[in-house]
Amino acid sequence: MFNIALFGAGRIGQVHAVNIANHKETCLYSVVDPHPTNAKALAHQYQAKIQTGEEAMSDPGVHGVLIASSTDTHADLIELAARHNKVIFCEKPVHLDLERVRQCLATVKVCQVPLFVGFNRRYDPQFRQLKNLFDAGTVGKAESLLIISRDPSPPPAEYVRVSGGLFRDMTIHDLDMARFIIGEEPCAIYAQGSHLVDPAIGTAGDIDTAFIVMKFPSGAMATITNSRRSGYGYDQRLELHGEKGLLSAGNIKENSVEFWGENGCTTAKPEYFFLQRYRDAYIAEWSHFVDVMAGRVMPETSGIDGERALYLADKALESLQSGQEIKL
Amino acid sequence: MFNIALFGAGRIGQVHAVNIANHKETCLYSVVDPHPTNAKALAHQYQAKIQTGEEAMSDPGVHGVLIASSTDTHADLIELAARHNKVIFCEKPVHLDLERVRQCLATVKVCQVPLFVGFNRRYDPQFRQLKNLFDAGTVGKAESLLIISRDPSPPPAEYVRVSGGLFRDMTIHDLDMARFIIGEEPCAIYAQGSHLVDPAIGTAGDIDTAFIVMKFPSGAMATITNSRRSGYGYDQRLELHGEKGLLSAGNIKENSVEFWGENGCTTAKPEYFFLQRYRDAYIAEWSHFVDVMAGRVMPETSGIDGERALYLADKALESLQSGQEIKL
Amino acid sequence: MFNIALFGAGRIGQVHAVNIANHKETCLYSVVDPHPTNAKALAHQYQAKIQTGEEAMSDPGVHGVLIASSTDTHADLIELAARHNKVIFCEKPVHLDLERVRQCLATVKVCQVPLFVGFNRRYDPQFRQLKNLFDAGTVGKAESLLIISRDPSPPPAEYVRVSGGLFRDMTIHDLDMARFIIGEEPCAIYAQGSHLVDPAIGTAGDIDTAFIVMKFPSGAMATITNSRRSGYGYDQRLELHGEKGLLSAGNIKENSVEFWGENGCTTAKPEYFFLQRYRDAYIAEWSHFVDVMAGRVMPETSGIDGERALYLADKALESLQSGQEIKL
Amino acid sequence: MFNIALFGAGRIGQVHAVNIANHKETCLYSVVDPHPTNAKALAHQYQAKIQTGEEAMSDPGVHGVLIASSTDTHADLIELAARHNKVIFCEKPVHLDLERVRQCLATVKVCQVPLFVGFNRRYDPQFRQLKNLFDAGTVGKAESLLIISRDPSPPPAEYVRVSGGLFRDMTIHDLDMARFIIGEEPCAIYAQGSHLVDPAIGTAGDIDTAFIVMKFPSGAMATITNSRRSGYGYDQRLELHGEKGLLSAGNIKENSVEFWGENGCTTAKPEYFFLQRYRDAYIAEWSHFVDVMAGRVMPETSGIDGERALYLADKALESLQSGQEIKL
Repeated sequence: MFNIALFGAGRIGQVHAVNIANHKETCLYSVVDPHPTNAKALAHQYQAKIQTGEEAMSDPGVHGVLIASSTDTHADLIELAARHNKVIFCEKPVHLDLERVRQCLATVKVCQVPLFVGFNRRYDPQFRQLKNLFDAGTVGKAESLLIISRDPSPPPAEYVRVSGGLFRDMTIHDLDMARFIIGEEPCAIYAQGSHLVDPAIGTAGDIDTAFIVMKFPSGAMATITNSRRSGYGYDQRLELHGEKGLLSAGNIKENSVEFWGENGCTTAKPEYFFLQRYRDAYIAEWSHFVDVMAGRVMPETSGIDGERALYLADKALESLQSGQEIKL
Repeated sequence: MFNIALFGAGRIGQVHAVNIANHKETCLYSVVDPHPTNAKALAHQYQAKIQTGEEAMSDPGVHGVLIASSTDTHADLIELAARHNKVIFCEKPVHLDLERVRQCLATVKVCQVPLFVGFNRRYDPQFRQLKNLFDAGTVGKAESLLIISRDPSPPPAEYVRVSGGLFRDMTIHDLDMARFIIGEEPCAIYAQGSHLVDPAIGTAGDIDTAFIVMKFPSGAMATITNSRRSGYGYDQRLELHGEKGLLSAGNIKENSVEFWGENGCTTAKPEYFFLQRYRDAYIAEWSHFVDVMAGRVMPETSGIDGERALYLADKALESLQSGQEIKL
Repeated sequence: MFNIALFGAGRIGQVHAVNIANHKETCLYSVVDPHPTNAKALAHQYQAKIQTGEEAMSDPGVHGVLIASSTDTHADLIELAARHNKVIFCEKPVHLDLERVRQCLATVKVCQVPLFVGFNRRYDPQFRQLKNLFDAGTVGKAESLLIISRDPSPPPAEYVRVSGGLFRDMTIHDLDMARFIIGEEPCAIYAQGSHLVDPAIGTAGDIDTAFIVMKFPSGAMATITNSRRSGYGYDQRLELHGEKGLLSAGNIKENSVEFWGENGCTTAKPEYFFLQRYRDAYIAEWSHFVDVMAGRVMPETSGIDGERALYLADKALESLQSGQEIKL
Repeated sequence: MFNIALFGAGRIGQVHAVNIANHKETCLYSVVDPHPTNAKALAHQYQAKIQTGEEAMSDPGVHGVLIASSTDTHADLIELAARHNKVIFCEKPVHLDLERVRQCLATVKVCQVPLFVGFNRRYDPQFRQLKNLFDAGTVGKAESLLIISRDPSPPPAEYVRVSGGLFRDMTIHDLDMARFIIGEEPCAIYAQGSHLVDPAIGTAGDIDTAFIVMKFPSGAMATITNSRRSGYGYDQRLELHGEKGLLSAGNIKENSVEFWGENGCTTAKPEYFFLQRYRDAYIAEWSHFVDVMAGRVMPETSGIDGERALYLADKALESLQSGQEIKL
């Protein structure tokens, strides 16, 4: 049984808490959160301790830490945990600044602790099934990948201002997905964007709608389309075209009921947002992390993946600002 | 926190155990099973006691019992639990003999304890959504209902022999569903059947493929089609035609991935069997039962529903054997 | 080039006229219709003659006749054409009275002319593809067949009164389809029905909603569900379950456009009615009839098919009226 | 009745011939083709004359010309027809050289004859329905458009060499579609491409797989993905995301039959290629052209559309070669 200290008792922390508690090899040992209300609620529900960060890190009873606190604390907590020899699960991103990420990863390397970065979508059963079929040769060599990724509705402008911008905050998942599916590092990137959804996003200097095109050394290409607001739930789809055909992974609808009437056929929307769509992905990634803690496997998604995705986000921004394709 | 004694630690008992443990208002207090191995495994996993039936029934710490033992024990256990004033959750059927069911329900009535009969499909989110849309008037008055219900593969012949036959064992769910959706008691029933799937089923005097037609007082009709073997997973669908159109609830596929290649488009099968398809239904029915225990609601599916469904199964058999439509 | 005399210049006659004209081996030679306006319009459009029935039948330039006139004239015209040695295409039904049908077929037999009865649905590319896959062994032996057949909206009450009733007018197509798909003659039939759609239909002594169950010697079964009013276009579907899986033939939607918005996903209705849905079927059956005229094949759907389907319709009515399953 | 002279009796000329013959206001008057065999076959089938180009142009009986000859003859024939005052239907492209196109259009302008350029996809019922729903405000303002366009299999290398390259030969349709749907002229274009399908295409200096991104003055963006070989038929889809949701127009499958078996669900491929998928589009564009000849409407798709699409293709090539986004 691995004891876990959970940093961050907010929305995403709560998702992880239930998965930690439900996994037969892990136990929610303690909760760390600067907001006592959140921490107390979660600790009470799972009969866990409340600890400060210092306490948790230096507590020999803690085997692993799950960092789900605010983005700006991730790198510091990773370094602290690494120095205390804890196995680390950190929500993406490691940090919004690429140099800080690299510094942090260097520390992790010195300390030789496993670091898993939570690119949850890699554990979505739909995307994983597509990846497995691709790896099994179903469509032969990859030629073009289409990633459609739209949030149901835009975040508040105050969030946008501290988010690092669309590419570092939202596209980063899709950049990681492109690397994951194609299995290569891109050699060129181009980005085009607009602010169409919310004027406040434009005022904040950000975009809310984007297309990114990447080329890979094999000649394969990938395109990402992003929007901060779909209007119909969470739109999360992949289409991989290869030499023998197409693999697509579609949305999961809220239910399978159809109504046929005088206006045609109406069916349900895609599941609303990441908490619904990626519910199974969160469970699966936790299961993988337990395997990491148990020494059965190495982290599939580690610090370097966090670093590469952020690097691509930075280069996409450079392309958007310069109107140039950027060679990588 | 309600303490639950679970009778039966087999396949379906294990499904309920995890839901009891995960619900924040219930706790798996004890496990009762004549096979010590099963009982021990489950008790160990959830840190529950092992009890005999007598112990569990007379233990004042037990608030509710969940009867998931073999069919022939249901009626006796219900009566025992009723006399000990426990709130009762019983897997269908109450008993295979209609008279015994009625006797049992009379006892429950005298003891004035709530009895919930586990017609799990009523809690399937797909079917529930169809029912909700129908109740909201989406298609107006019901005219015809189609229930398609096929198991992935036939049970062993030894099971068939003690099952009570296709109608009492399998169709009973669909008979309940027809009553649930239409919201009336049928006034005529007709059944036609064959044994096509497995010769051993015919030898056992049973059928494996059937059509049942029912008529309701409003003029609405329902048809059930059953097979013991689909060849493609668990086929569980409803189509309700009404004066303003059609509501259909389809299967849930194992994943949303499509492969387009030279032989067309291939997608996944429906989820394999009831443990997969009705996973959410089991959680939802447990949540309803917790509301019953807490006195917040009356059982939506009670003994009388068990009795009516068995009565219809008996009459379907009478129709099959006589080649007559049976008036009810 | 075969010259065709077309009897009946109404809605269905017009469908055939365009197909006759477009086929490279046939020419619309003459039009026969008691209503001069209809006849003139059609004759003008295709530069055809206007003839009386007598003229057309005795005209040696006429190679084949297409009988698309009112139902009560079919049998007389078939006999007349047979005696004049014309190859005959007749819209279903041959007649509403079974004895008259048999008499008529006897005459055809004596005259040794080919008679094709227009069960158009056999030529629908969807249903034909399903039949071809079944014949190729895709699902092994047939076990159960589901035929869903609903018209978009009910006919006027005056039509209902002369239609011969739901079974002879509408279900007859589905009865033929069941024989066509299963490839056997049924040995038992049961029917249940209601009048729910239009009170005038009930007043006219007819039903508008029905379920029919048939059993075949192999043990396979078929169910037909009919409604005079779907509320969402023409609902024409088949599902054939066999030992290795399921073949289904779905509706054709008016277009492939989806709208995803805050109320879910909306798509188009099925094609409106038989003129749209069976447009390709009419072309294909004409092409088959040309092969018959050319002596390349025998009629796939001949008088006996018309007779069998009417017989089943009669027996379904007998079942409905008696509440008994009828052995055939 | 308008008499039409058809230039080019090849594959696409034959498609038009049948539509000309079937339209009640047009007649295939003559066929012009340097290959006598093709010309004779078509002329015989529709009882049309065989003419030389000179004869057809100067024949006062000819009201309209349909230019479906080889690409390099289009501009010359348009000019000739314009000077002879014929109404002109020309298959795309007008010419592969932008300057020649502009010269040709200037001549047409001077002669004041209507010129329709055959961007057939605008008349596809699926895409037209999407456009109509967009114009009706269904999704509000356009934000991003995705055009997926893949041929079933690559053309021979000798065709590739004279085709003008992927962008001028294949993408040109999609560039026109983007202008048609969005209803604006793009202000920036970027292209990325690879040769992955056939080494001979790379040897010929061309690509076979591409992504193009365009930005429009409103901030809306469009992406095109092309491949010379899908592996599963003709892949022709649109997805338009706007402020209120998504409109998508999918492929049309060869039939609606599904097979559910132990390997999942298999359905038919998309219709094979443009002759199948755009059969109705060819009929609809011809109907529009008849309205143009009759003076009832102006050409919806005229020379300027041909010029704009070619201009965009040229700029896409410039972007591909320079690795720069091109401002327009």
